[in-house]
Amino acid sequence: MPKLITTRTRIADLGKPRIVVIGGGFGGLEVVKSLKGHHVQVVLFDKSNHHTFQPLLYQVATSGLETNSIVAPFRKLFGNQADFYFRLGEVKNIKPEENYIETSIGSIKYDYLVIASGATTNYYGMSEVEKHASSMKNIVDATKLRNKIIRQLEYALLTSDDEVMNSLMDFVIVGGGPTGVELAGALTELKKNVFPKDYKELDMRQMDIHLIEASPRLLNGMSDQAGKKAFDFLTEMGVKVHLGTAVKSYDGYEVVLSNGEKLISRSLIWAAGVKGNPIDGLNAEIITRGNRIQVDQFNRVKGYENIFAIGDVAVMEGDTKFPKGHPQMAPPAQQQGKLVAKNISNIIRKKPLKPFHYFDKGSMATIGRNKAVVDIKGIRFQGIFAWYVWMFVHLMSIVGFRNKVFTFFSWMWNYFSYDRSNRLIIGRNEEKIMLDEVKP
Amino acid sequence: MPKLITTRTRIADLGKPRIVVIGGGFGGLEVVKSLKGHHVQVVLFDKSNHHTFQPLLYQVATSGLETNSIVAPFRKLFGNQADFYFRLGEVKNIKPEENYIETSIGSIKYDYLVIASGATTNYYGMSEVEKHASSMKNIVDATKLRNKIIRQLEYALLTSDDEVMNSLMDFVIVGGGPTGVELAGALTELKKNVFPKDYKELDMRQMDIHLIEASPRLLNGMSDQAGKKAFDFLTEMGVKVHLGTAVKSYDGYEVVLSNGEKLISRSLIWAAGVKGNPIDGLNAEIITRGNRIQVDQFNRVKGYENIFAIGDVAVMEGDTKFPKGHPQMAPPAQQQGKLVAKNISNIIRKKPLKPFHYFDKGSMATIGRNKAVVDIKGIRFQGIFAWYVWMFVHLMSIVGFRNKVFTFFSWMWNYFSYDRSNRLIIGRNEEKIMLDEVKP
Repeated sequence: MPKLITTRTRIADLGKPRIVVIGGGFGGLEVVKSLKGHHVQVVLFDKSNHHTFQPLLYQVATSGLETNSIVAPFRKLFGNQADFYFRLGEVKNIKPEENYIETSIGSIKYDYLVIASGATTNYYGMSEVEKHASSMKNIVDATKLRNKIIRQLEYALLTSDDEVMNSLMDFVIVGGGPTGVELAGALTELKKNVFPKDYKELDMRQMDIHLIEASPRLLNGMSDQAGKKAFDFLTEMGVKVHLGTAVKSYDGYEVVLSNGEKLISRSLIWAAGVKGNPIDGLNAEIITRGNRIQVDQFNRVKGYENIFAIGDVAVMEGDTKFPKGHPQMAPPAQQQGKLVAKNISNIIRKKPLKPFHYFDKGSMATIGRNKAVVDIKGIRFQGIFAWYVWMFVHLMSIVGFRNKVFTFFSWMWNYFSYDRSNRLIIGRNEEKIMLDEVKP
Repeated sequence: MPKLITTRTRIADLGKPRIVVIGGGFGGLEVVKSLKGHHVQVVLFDKSNHHTFQPLLYQVATSGLETNSIVAPFRKLFGNQADFYFRLGEVKNIKPEENYIETSIGSIKYDYLVIASGATTNYYGMSEVEKHASSMKNIVDATKLRNKIIRQLEYALLTSDDEVMNSLMDFVIVGGGPTGVELAGALTELKKNVFPKDYKELDMRQMDIHLIEASPRLLNGMSDQAGKKAFDFLTEMGVKVHLGTAVKSYDGYEVVLSNGEKLISRSLIWAAGVKGNPIDGLNAEIITRGNRIQVDQFNRVKGYENIFAIGDVAVMEGDTKFPKGHPQMAPPAQQQGKLVAKNISNIIRKKPLKPFHYFDKGSMATIGRNKAVVDIKGIRFQGIFAWYVWMFVHLMSIVGFRNKVFTFFSWMWNYFSYDRSNRLIIGRNEEKIMLDEVKP
C-alpha cells in the first residue's frame, strides 16, 4: 500500500521509514538535524517557512534587532540533507490508528511521528485580556508589538489630555519570567536613550513601565540571588515592579490588579505563561497539566508506540527532579529532540532505547546594558560579566552563521551608538487605531 | 491669530514661518534637510514613520536585502534638527485660500507648503489588472511580493497538474524600465542559484520569467546602447523579453498580450508606469499630464504664491529639454527639494528666486551578478565595472550610515555565498491562497 494518501503533499514513498516532524522550533530542528545520515525519510511540517529564535523576540519588539536576524528559512538550513522534505502547512489532526496526519495541504502517512508543536500564550481563560493584550510568541507578534509601541508615542504627541497621554505612554508587562524581565529592561533603555531624542515634545518622566508578577519574586526558574538582583537592577532603572500581584482584568484601557490597584494603559504585554499546543486526534486523557502531552522517559506519547512528543508540548513522567515536567525552554526541547532521533533509529535497528536525562546547563537573563544575571551549576554571577556571557551564549545559539554575524553587528552598533535603528512602523492599515478611539 | 486650527497636531506657533512638507521621499527629505539652520519651523507629514529607499525595493522582493536596510526612521534622520516636527498622518486636503491642510490627525496652518507626495502605480485604467497584479512602490508591496514568490514555489510542490504547476512557477513582469529589468534579473538569479537547492523536487527549467515592454526597446530613459545591452544580458540569462508588446488583460491566471499571445501565470508584477499622487483641494485644471501638478520654474504650483510641488508629483513648464516634465526618479526630486528650500528662504528674506535647472547625473541599472549598464554624460559602459559603479553609487545614496554598512555586508554575503538569506514568508493568514483556488 502506498504511503501517500492524497497526492497533495507529493512526497514519494522511498521504501525507507518515514519520520514526520510537526514543528520546526528548537526541538523539531534538532530531530531533523540528528536524523541526517540515517537511512530514513524525514518530513518537516511547519506553519512558517522559517525557524524563529524565540529568546530574542523581545529585541525585535523593542527595535534592537531586525526581524531577519533571528529567523532562518528551513530550506536553507536543511538544503543539503538527503531525503529531507519540508512542507509549509498546518497539521490539523492525527489519525494514530491508521498512522497518518491531516494537514492544510493534504494527508500523509508516517512510520514515526514526532510532535514538536510547542506552546502558545496562556491567558488562563481570561478572554477579555486575550482580546486586548499583546503577546510575544512569534515574529508577527513581535513586529506588531514594535509597531504598537512606536505608534503609541506618535499618538501621545497629539493629545493634551493628561489621562489619554498617560494611557499611551505607560506600558504594563505581565509576567516576571525572562521574557517579562528582558522586555521591561529593553523598554526602559528605549525610554532613556532613544525616545527623549525622538519625542522631545513629550515629558519622558511620564512614561511608566510596570512589571507585574503574581509570585513573590522575579525569574522563578533561577536562583533567589538572580531574582533579587534582577529586581534591584529593574528598580534602579525605574521600572515599577509589582510582586505578589496578579492581573484581574483588562479592557484595553484600565488594568485592575489583584490588590485593587488600577493602572491606565493602552499597552498590556502578556508574558505570564504558556500552555502546550497539542494536535487533535490523540487520546484526550493524556493531555494533562498545562495542556501538555504525557510522555514516557523515551518521549513516547503514552499509549502509542510510534508517536513521540518533545519540548514545550510534552510533559515527562518519572523525572523525580522535575515532577511537574521539564522547563518550557530551548535546552530540554533540544536535548529531547536529539535523543528521540537516536531512539527512533534504535527502534529501526532493533536496539534498546535510552531514557532521557535532562542536563541543566543553567539559565540566564539580560536586564539591560551591562546588566544580566547568570546561574550555571551553582555558580551565580550578575552584572557586566554576566552580560558578556549572556551575549556570547545567545550569539552562539542563534541559528545560521549569517544571523550570528548580523546580530553581532547590530549589538555592537546599538551598544556604541546608544541607538535602536529599527524603530519602524511597517504594517498595514488595519493595525492603526484612531486617536478618537483611545479613550473609551 | 494662532496658526493652530485644531489641537490635535499640537505643534506650537513659534512666531517663525512654518513650512509644511507633505511626504518624506527623496524630494521631501532634501527640503527638510536644506532648511536646517534657517529661522523657520519645519513640519513633515508622512503616512510612514520612515523614508524608503525605493530603488532597492526589488532586492527586498527577491530576498536579497532585509527590509530594515533600506528604510530609515524620520525621527532618527532629523533628531538633531531644531524646530523640526514630524507627524505620522495622511494629508487629505489642502485649503489654499485659508492656508491650511486637513490630515488624518487634524488640521494645521502653513506659511509655505511643499507637496512632495510622489507617485503611485499607474494601471492606465485597467482595474482587473490592478486587482490581480503585484506592485512595487513601498516596503509592504515588496514584502508581499517576496512572500508571494516563495509561496508560489511552495505551492508548486503540491500539484501534479502541469498547467497549475506552470502557473505557479512562471512570473510575468510588465514594464522594461529599471524596476522591471532589475526585477527580472534578480528573479533569474533566484532561479539559478537558490531555488534549485531549495526545491529539488521541481524542474527549474519549467520556471519562465517573462518581461513585457510596450515600446520597441528596454530602459527607455537611457542610451540605445544600454537598452540593447540590457536586452542581451537578460536574454542570455534566459529571460523571455517581449518588446513592442503590451498587456491587454489579466484575470489572475491568464495574461493576454497585445499580439494575441497568452501566458499562464499566477504572478504578474506591474512595473509599467507611475502617475502623480497629488493632494485634493488644488485647482483641478493644473493637474495635468500623468496626474502631475503644473509648476513654474521655481517649482511653485501654478496659480498659488506659497505652494510648491517637487519630484514625481510635479511637472515643470518651460524646461525645453524636458517638455514632458523631468524624469520621475530620485535626482530631479532631490535637486528640486534643495532649490525649493533655498527659494523659500529667499522669499522670506525678500531676495530674488532662482529658477530650476536639472543637472543630469546619468542613469544606471543592474541586471545581475557582474552585469550592469551605466550612462554618465555621454560615457556609456556595461558589464562588471558598470556593476561596481552601480553598487558604489547606490551604497552611497542609501539614507543612513548603518543602512549603508548593513547593505554592504548583505551584498558581500550574497555575492560570495550565491545565497539569498531573506527568503522568508513573514505575513498574515489573509495573504495565503489555498491550493484549490489556484486554477480558476
